[in-house]
Amino acid sequence: MKLLDNREELLVRVRQQMHEKRYKHTLGVAASARELAERFGADPDKAELAGLLHDYCKCWPVEKMFEILVRHDMPTELLEGEKELWHAFAAAIVIQTDLGVTDTDILQAVRYHTTGRAGMSLLEKVVCVADYIEPNRVYPGVDFIRAKAMHDLDAALALALGGTIQFLIEKQKTVFPLTLTAYNDLISRKGREGGFDG
Amino acid sequence: MKLLDNREELLVRVRQQMHEKRYKHTLGVAASARELAERFGADPDKAELAGLLHDYCKCWPVEKMFEILVRHDMPTELLEGEKELWHAFAAAIVIQTDLGVTDTDILQAVRYHTTGRAGMSLLEKVVCVADYIEPNRVYPGVDFIRAKAMHDLDAALALALGGTIQFLIEKQKTVFPLTLTAYNDLISRKGREGGFDG
Repeated sequence: MKLLDNREELLVRVRQQMHEKRYKHTLGVAASARELAERFGADPDKAELAGLLHDYCKCWPVEKMFEILVRHDMPTELLEGEKELWHAFAAAIVIQTDLGVTDTDILQAVRYHTTGRAGMSLLEKVVCVADYIEPNRVYPGVDFIRAKAMHDLDAALALALGGTIQFLIEKQKTVFPLTLTAYNDLISRKGREGGFDG
Repeated sequence: MKLLDNREELLVRVRQQMHEKRYKHTLGVAASARELAERFGADPDKAELAGLLHDYCKCWPVEKMFEILVRHDMPTELLEGEKELWHAFAAAIVIQTDLGVTDTDILQAVRYHTTGRAGMSLLEKVVCVADYIEPNRVYPGVDFIRAKAMHDLDAALALALGGTIQFLIEKQKTVFPLTLTAYNDLISRKGREGGFDG
């Protein structure tokens, strides 16, 4: 990964896609992803780059995202589902076509950073958790997830995804099935290994 | 439905399948199901009968349920999933083979009384909600669900299923995907109709 070779140029491109608060969050996720990668043995450069690019399309108009998703034959379930999820799938396409990112591991980490999925890779988990715990995040329970992420990435992720599902139900919103699949997968694995500690 | 023709005999058969507390719950569900059916326009006799039979296998040994489910080619997902769900699918088979219930609406109401599913019939909703609110039930939030069930069956069911999902996550347990599908389906429909009131 030649992240640092064109870092300044890349940061300018990323900054152009979003408003200031989102950019600040983006830098936070990139930093937290690098930290988590170092802690849990993922590639820190890949993690930082995925963090920098994960919300590349977040502030784009939904029509623009929709057009990209349709052009790339994304499943009907996604196109007819929650629009909040589109930016992740759109970004995984756009950072490939516009920025030339070809690393599958990074592309998948960007694609599944919001929903999660069953059988997530280490890098996917790192970016997903980083998105939940980066320093600018403030919501009930974030410190507990941060504490978990100091020593158990899977426990932190299960807690974060579970919390999202509970929050959506509290608000009487639908839950994307992939998120439940991701949550169930983590719980089943931990169950077979003897459960989360603490 | 000739429910009342052999009611005493049927009650004895049901009583033989379970311990006293479960039988008391069963009578409660039957009564609540009849009440809900009358309120929301389902067939009260079918509702009462489905209520009487919904937990027919609940106290059976899991090995006996497993054997029945395998013999009737139930999907692997069910056989490898939570054993707590087996009794509903087993009962839908047993009340047909052993008691001669042939009414599809009743069989489906028994089959999906625990998990729910997308596109539930009125009778399925009635039995599922009755199971949550029958007079012997005591858990946080039950009175709120009871109040909803006085005027909005779908809202009561969404609240009940959503609460179950939240409870399972709280306990770090897996959630059966059908239950999320059922919940999402109710929320999506209500969203299109303008949301739940109150």
